[in-house]
Amino acid sequence: MGVSREGFQWTPSSGLKSGLPSIGVVEPPKKLRTSEDILDVIVIGAGYTGLTAARDASTNGLKTLLIEGRDRIGGRTWSSNIEGYPYEMGGTWIHWFQPHVYRELSRYGMKDEIVHSTDFNYRHNFFSFETASGRREMSHEEEDELFSRAIEKFCNVDGNLGKTVIPFPFNAHWNKDVLQFSNLSVADRIAQISHDLSSDEQHAIEAFVLLCSGGTRDNSAFLDFLRWWAAGNYNYKTLLDTIIIFKLKCGQSGFARKFFDEAIATGNLSYLFNTTVTQVDSSKTIVQVRTADGQRFQAKRLICTVPLNVLSKVEFDPPLNRAKQEAAALKHVNQCVKVHAEIKDPEMRSWSGVTYPDNELVIGLADGRTPAGTTHCVFFGCNAKLQADEDVEKTLKAVKAFAPMDVERLVFHNWAKDEFAEGAWVWYRPGMEVKYLEALRERQGPVLFANSDWASGGWRSFIDGAIQSGTEAAMTVRDELKAPSRNDGSRL
Amino acid sequence: MGVSREGFQWTPSSGLKSGLPSIGVVEPPKKLRTSEDILDVIVIGAGYTGLTAARDASTNGLKTLLIEGRDRIGGRTWSSNIEGYPYEMGGTWIHWFQPHVYRELSRYGMKDEIVHSTDFNYRHNFFSFETASGRREMSHEEEDELFSRAIEKFCNVDGNLGKTVIPFPFNAHWNKDVLQFSNLSVADRIAQISHDLSSDEQHAIEAFVLLCSGGTRDNSAFLDFLRWWAAGNYNYKTLLDTIIIFKLKCGQSGFARKFFDEAIATGNLSYLFNTTVTQVDSSKTIVQVRTADGQRFQAKRLICTVPLNVLSKVEFDPPLNRAKQEAAALKHVNQCVKVHAEIKDPEMRSWSGVTYPDNELVIGLADGRTPAGTTHCVFFGCNAKLQADEDVEKTLKAVKAFAPMDVERLVFHNWAKDEFAEGAWVWYRPGMEVKYLEALRERQGPVLFANSDWASGGWRSFIDGAIQSGTEAAMTVRDELKAPSRNDGSRL
Repeated sequence: MGVSREGFQWTPSSGLKSGLPSIGVVEPPKKLRTSEDILDVIVIGAGYTGLTAARDASTNGLKTLLIEGRDRIGGRTWSSNIEGYPYEMGGTWIHWFQPHVYRELSRYGMKDEIVHSTDFNYRHNFFSFETASGRREMSHEEEDELFSRAIEKFCNVDGNLGKTVIPFPFNAHWNKDVLQFSNLSVADRIAQISHDLSSDEQHAIEAFVLLCSGGTRDNSAFLDFLRWWAAGNYNYKTLLDTIIIFKLKCGQSGFARKFFDEAIATGNLSYLFNTTVTQVDSSKTIVQVRTADGQRFQAKRLICTVPLNVLSKVEFDPPLNRAKQEAAALKHVNQCVKVHAEIKDPEMRSWSGVTYPDNELVIGLADGRTPAGTTHCVFFGCNAKLQADEDVEKTLKAVKAFAPMDVERLVFHNWAKDEFAEGAWVWYRPGMEVKYLEALRERQGPVLFANSDWASGGWRSFIDGAIQSGTEAAMTVRDELKAPSRNDGSRL
Repeated sequence: MGVSREGFQWTPSSGLKSGLPSIGVVEPPKKLRTSEDILDVIVIGAGYTGLTAARDASTNGLKTLLIEGRDRIGGRTWSSNIEGYPYEMGGTWIHWFQPHVYRELSRYGMKDEIVHSTDFNYRHNFFSFETASGRREMSHEEEDELFSRAIEKFCNVDGNLGKTVIPFPFNAHWNKDVLQFSNLSVADRIAQISHDLSSDEQHAIEAFVLLCSGGTRDNSAFLDFLRWWAAGNYNYKTLLDTIIIFKLKCGQSGFARKFFDEAIATGNLSYLFNTTVTQVDSSKTIVQVRTADGQRFQAKRLICTVPLNVLSKVEFDPPLNRAKQEAAALKHVNQCVKVHAEIKDPEMRSWSGVTYPDNELVIGLADGRTPAGTTHCVFFGCNAKLQADEDVEKTLKAVKAFAPMDVERLVFHNWAKDEFAEGAWVWYRPGMEVKYLEALRERQGPVLFANSDWASGGWRSFIDGAIQSGTEAAMTVRDELKAPSRNDGSRL
């Protein structure tokens, strides 16, 4: 297993160290087939979008080059295997209701890798709820009842649990009545229903929604949450099932590897890791790509999977259209803090909790049992309120604010400071979705833009949206290049 | 649009006529590339399984021959477009929680083809319930409440709504405790809970479950239903959403065409319709296929998608393994009767009803509005109780037993008498699943067996299972043929 330069680990004995082992690390980081001067397609970025695009392009016989700034595959989703246990540094949970994810898991024979995150068979089988109103413990049934009631109020904008305004999660604007909510922030929506909310309910909504958005009450769009709600079949328990209950035994990097390995097996894939693209020139028929270390590549098509928050770091000629530039400058709001902690007490395996609003971390939950018998808990905060790599003591304090815990290890990736992401999964500002989403999806001549950040399905911002987006881009490129007489990209 | 020799239509003025127009008809029915003596792969059957397998094989560069006995694509799923309205002769409903279906709809840019079957905005907005206890009308909310309560009792085998015994719908035997239910029939399960069932509840369970199984109380396995329940997230409303609420505006044949057209566009696909395979000889390294009209073809691999109930019509050398032979001789029980009726009154658009047990049809529901403004209703019976093509008067009487209706048209396909299916979607007899399922999936040398009838996912018996099964088979073949040194099928 390789060691990525990304991520951090802390233990009481070794202190803080950067870099984590991962099966997602690609060694050697370079494989260039020299037979072609002009490639069929260059894919920028080896997250799930780029991996899918590169796989589909190469299995369709296209000469493909994948360029990635990191030393590993997976983008905002990767796992580090430490002492036989996979810690998910970014994207984690999946479900068979996420069609693109599950189709791939099924196709790769990985269905049996799906495991439960939760296990309510241990002694500390409760939910701790610490808010401005004080600290209480409740059963997980009581927790679900509170959150379900509160989130339903939050989403019931039409007296039909949102089904009227978003009847199809994969086409959130199908009913134009939904647009009346497009400029609402989470805080705005809470204000609309505050007359009907208990203090508990409001804290539950805010903690849960900020877990989802990674932003603040004021900068997080309500509409994104309403779409998540629709994707989860307008039901809190189904939403939970789909976004935070099931994960992969082998870790996400084990899944991502399948895409990469399949692409390599075609013999059509070249790749360059540790290589940052700085310029894309599509002013001529053939796209020219330039990297930070001065390399140049040419291709008939380019699939750019660079995330929204770092899109402005690449220089495009002709420049990005105005709307793309504006959206890239505004950026989305998800500055999620995610910290894994290995907890000594095995009985914590059944615990979860909220500390809000007076802690840097908002939600914590037991997520697994390590081979050593300790409990793996994962904690989420929002708005980059904690830089765990800068202040381990503060991080430990924030973890221990949930409950007394012996912390034997911390593992994390600071996504806010990540140069290739500058944030986590997408969550728009109020108004941004309606104003910019379509423009973000638009191709510019031979350059296609694919990313879960603007995926057109119900699972935009999820791994599922990434795979969907990569699938679509590769299919477009294949259809054009395999039938050049009918579709000449240079005229698009 | 071509005209299939399959299906029937009746109107008061024209009487009964066989044959229906369908965009699924392939004309001309034959396209043979003559350049190869030995093909890479032959696919028998052009249902969704075979279409997917042929598409994936051909897009992966394999020389592929698709052989189909019918004059059309789609197998047990096809639509007839009559006066601008698509009638679904077989498989109909889909949902974005069916991963393989939705992934393909998304990939083909067809998401906006998804429409609601139900529309509760018309005057006759009620559910009619006619049972041994008499006839009543109730609101759709009352209908849902009754069926939800009844089906929950039916499925709550573990005090946890089935989640304990089937935690993963795609791996129904994950918890071996589920095997205690493997020999139960629907009648057996009802007997277990009859002390807790009202007459209404029992009628609701039987009507709904027989709609699903197409068999009888005694020959339908309970376990199949429990898996459907798990696939629908252990919730009646979610199950309804996934199996009977959403369909395609363009008709299923419009969807199936996309697979076929994509395969053709590769230039790697040959096909023969109206051609029945009679013999498969895999006793030598190369598979030999013989058709009823005496043609012979050879390939390195064969993907046989012949459904269970007609599998014994093909002669295999070496013969099918013992378990496959037994299962094919036993057959599954689904002898569903499906009859479409065009009803004059547009206000029936919001109606649904049950007549059970004293009618040849069990469940009816409004399914659409035709361009002429009439209501399209669809009716289901079980156990081949009605041969609509043999007795139109009896069929009309069974339809009108639900409610007073002016029937302006009947459209149907007699699946029980269909020579290439001898039944509808798979529903096993008690005990059959555990005894035969794994054997049905086994390859025999270079011959792979793929069909939704034994698909390994949660949506076995659905279109989703067909696409899944075809995807897997094509991937296996590709991996073997593209890396012959590592995988030599002749030695398997």
